[in-house]
Amino acid sequence: MTPERPPFVLSFFQDKVGHDLAAWRHPEAATETVLTLEYQARLARTAERGKFDMVFLADALTLLPENNSAFTTTFYFEPLVLLATLAAATKRIGLAATVSTSYGEPYHVARAFGTLDLLSGGRGAWNVVTSMRESEAWNFGREGSLDHATRYERAQEFLDVVRLLWRSWEPDAIVADRASGRFADPDKIHPIRHRGRHFAVEGPLNVPRSPQGEPVIVQAGASSIGKAFAARNAEVIFASTPDLRSARAFYADVKEAAVAEGRRPEAIKILPGMIPIVGRTRAEAEEKHRFLKGLLLPEAAIRYLSQWLETDLSGFDPDRPLPDIFDIERIRGQKGRFANIIDISRREKLTLGALAARVAATRTHCFMVGTAEEIADEMEAWLDGGGCDGFNILTTHLPAGLDEFVDEVVPLLQERGRFRADYEHETLRGHLGLPFDEASLERRGVSEAPRYHARLTETASA
Amino acid sequence: MTPERPPFVLSFFQDKVGHDLAAWRHPEAATETVLTLEYQARLARTAERGKFDMVFLADALTLLPENNSAFTTTFYFEPLVLLATLAAATKRIGLAATVSTSYGEPYHVARAFGTLDLLSGGRGAWNVVTSMRESEAWNFGREGSLDHATRYERAQEFLDVVRLLWRSWEPDAIVADRASGRFADPDKIHPIRHRGRHFAVEGPLNVPRSPQGEPVIVQAGASSIGKAFAARNAEVIFASTPDLRSARAFYADVKEAAVAEGRRPEAIKILPGMIPIVGRTRAEAEEKHRFLKGLLLPEAAIRYLSQWLETDLSGFDPDRPLPDIFDIERIRGQKGRFANIIDISRREKLTLGALAARVAATRTHCFMVGTAEEIADEMEAWLDGGGCDGFNILTTHLPAGLDEFVDEVVPLLQERGRFRADYEHETLRGHLGLPFDEASLERRGVSEAPRYHARLTETASA
Ligand SMILES: Cc1cc2nc3c(=O)[nH]c(=O)nc-3n(C[C@H](O)[C@H](O)[C@H](O)COP(=O)(O)O)c2cc1C
Ligand SMILES: Cc1cc2nc3c(=O)[nH]c(=O)nc-3n(C[C@H](O)[C@H](O)[C@H](O)COP(=O)(O)O)c2cc1C
Repeated sequence: MTPERPPFVLSFFQDKVGHDLAAWRHPEAATETVLTLEYQARLARTAERGKFDMVFLADALTLLPENNSAFTTTFYFEPLVLLATLAAATKRIGLAATVSTSYGEPYHVARAFGTLDLLSGGRGAWNVVTSMRESEAWNFGREGSLDHATRYERAQEFLDVVRLLWRSWEPDAIVADRASGRFADPDKIHPIRHRGRHFAVEGPLNVPRSPQGEPVIVQAGASSIGKAFAARNAEVIFASTPDLRSARAFYADVKEAAVAEGRRPEAIKILPGMIPIVGRTRAEAEEKHRFLKGLLLPEAAIRYLSQWLETDLSGFDPDRPLPDIFDIERIRGQKGRFANIIDISRREKLTLGALAARVAATRTHCFMVGTAEEIADEMEAWLDGGGCDGFNILTTHLPAGLDEFVDEVVPLLQERGRFRADYEHETLRGHLGLPFDEASLERRGVSEAPRYHARLTETASA
Repeated sequence: MTPERPPFVLSFFQDKVGHDLAAWRHPEAATETVLTLEYQARLARTAERGKFDMVFLADALTLLPENNSAFTTTFYFEPLVLLATLAAATKRIGLAATVSTSYGEPYHVARAFGTLDLLSGGRGAWNVVTSMRESEAWNFGREGSLDHATRYERAQEFLDVVRLLWRSWEPDAIVADRASGRFADPDKIHPIRHRGRHFAVEGPLNVPRSPQGEPVIVQAGASSIGKAFAARNAEVIFASTPDLRSARAFYADVKEAAVAEGRRPEAIKILPGMIPIVGRTRAEAEEKHRFLKGLLLPEAAIRYLSQWLETDLSGFDPDRPLPDIFDIERIRGQKGRFANIIDISRREKLTLGALAARVAATRTHCFMVGTAEEIADEMEAWLDGGGCDGFNILTTHLPAGLDEFVDEVVPLLQERGRFRADYEHETLRGHLGLPFDEASLERRGVSEAPRYHARLTETASA
């Protein structure tokens, strides 16, 4: 692997029985076993057999609306609990889960990821999201979600606190000297004494340092605020770009913003979502694609698009273009991806029905349909054409979609010297080539945490 | 097993390298590997080999004070993440973790335990605690903890909301009918529409029902408010009673209170903490005990007692009795166990130093020191003497303390027909003989949740 031909970073987006809205109807989908640990563990092990850098779990803090839940799989396992079972079921693959900064406590989140990172031997990663649905707010005592800018402001403080907590134990704080009876060195465990706009957290964390320093930060902002947040904080960025043209624009944009934040462009790995459909021939791949399209209920697709566009579209003619009633200012949720959908609709001149089907199959990710060779070629074209540092692999339906990619596409990437033949490191930071940067928080002006002062009794003594 | 000679319920209290304050100094303690998943999984598998009903993880939301952390192991893994790894590492044993109701959100807690319960095939349990330390409050933006009564009031509402969320999916809500394209039946998924004093939660949960109906509720209140809470809500109760006399009083008290709440006494399993020290001879067991005592640093013990009594005791003469400066009204933390400690000190006329050593070794749990036969006899005397329904097994140091109990005491209990030779059920409720009672919440006056109404778009449409 020469520097001119960098290797791929690959993430596997593990989500129920696949990403197609109708995936669960596929005869090969694991619809009957999706709730079992055995099935979930098998997926992660397959991704590990494919030497993926990491497996990624998404999340939502609500059950999506009624009609949608009648038509597809909308439950969400609590991601850290699922991820922890996957930690026990695997040895080397990185482990990323989504946790929102809008409805939790930094101390809880720091502990959960700190524990996962420690127990997995340094394989943890946190996908930082701000939650975009009104109904998520309703499960946490709020009338509605915070506005987009406030969500990201809170996210920045939340993330800063979590990182301070992760660093509250110096790496060599545990002495464990049986002879002297000294377990830890209190001079190496620091409170953080944070008092900010949204949070006040004393610290220190009650979880020691992990072998990789601290979990990897993942993010997927798509709006201008979201991309700025990612450029400032993220180490892995999920993109959602339907074609190489838009991928290139996103890639250049974010790397430039990262440089403006004083970061090296290589310190950020940008991974667009990609849905492979692999056939022995192109015709077979296309036939697979057609079969999947046939499983989709048109009304389910319209309802799904209604959610993305925050607008009830059921009354509109599916055979005509998307009505011209959208104003991005009104969108509270995923502003950036809203813009992508409107863009696809206009550029490709799709009818409402066709747009709904497209979003039901891909969200705004890209499809690669063809033989393994063709897919590997296209992947290389994206990587070498400045569109990505790798991919977040989504699959139409599971487990088949992953099996095929691992058995047919990965070996080609390996033969071509574009992907590891085996893991060369123990930690996720090792896989990604993103060593832990102890000084990075200080550089951003967060002052060094003071020593963890004596606090002998819990209530001051009498 | 005849009804007159009921079988033991056994819980294994899995906590770092053991319960003795100086456990980590023991040459056989796993001090070097305590932070690894391999070690943690080995403990749970040993308990499963011993056919324990469940493994239990405690928690604290703070790092205990400096001097203590210098002298012993005071970190705490986030318990649900650790427990989830144990779910993947075991097949049959029940899985209980502690989560506080004072600093979290019911929706998060319901999801985490719901997911654990589902992925483990119905083996989950939640130890409901209210948190007692001021420094826990400081990690969550509060100046100090809520007062004892308010903590339990909030705990009741928190628990009610979590149970409503667990029940928001009817058991047969998932249809998964590929042909019609109907995944779930929305008429069987209900919002909870809770609006209470402490929480407002819309629901439904986004996690389906678990095979055991819902997780088992564990509790360990010791004050009068705490015991009333347990009598009303708990299915397993941890006690901490130093001798059979106090165990009997606690047992009769709680069962009576449960009956007053309209519950069957058999619907609650009371498990005092017990620390076995097993020797081939009694002399060997006593020698093991003496060796452990020799590992304890007297100053560490005094500091530890200072925390329990919320009073700095370092200035007092360790060779004289506990000074008479305590007033239970002043205690914000564990009122019930505070009272137990004062009681032990008075009844046994211990010096301050001896009391500190006693608490460092046992907290307020009981010791059973002797041969396996003697320990089994004593356990039977407690069970048959109305002191318990089983035990929560604490160990001096790990893994040895657990290995010895499983290899030497468990087989005797099995021979005597007092403990299962193998698991007879798949779920924790099965092991405990505590079937899920769908109607129990309704009986307590929580009205039936309404149907999950249509919510087509996230923001009302334009
Ligand atoms: C691959 C990918 C995965 C995502 N996963 C989640 C998720 O699990 N939970 C969530 O709330 N948002 C998720 N998002 C949404 C992003 O966090 C972000 O909100 C969205 O891309 C819109 O960008 P914006 O916040 O800048 O408007 C994901 C986005 C992408 C592209
Ligand atoms: C075996 C046992 C385990 C306990 N585990 C925890 C725990 O993990 N976290 C916690 O905050 N309290 C724990 N407690 C404390 C109890 O929840 C309770 O607060 C304590 O017994 C004092 O009772 P009170 O709250 O009625 O005053 C435990 C108690 C016992 C006996």
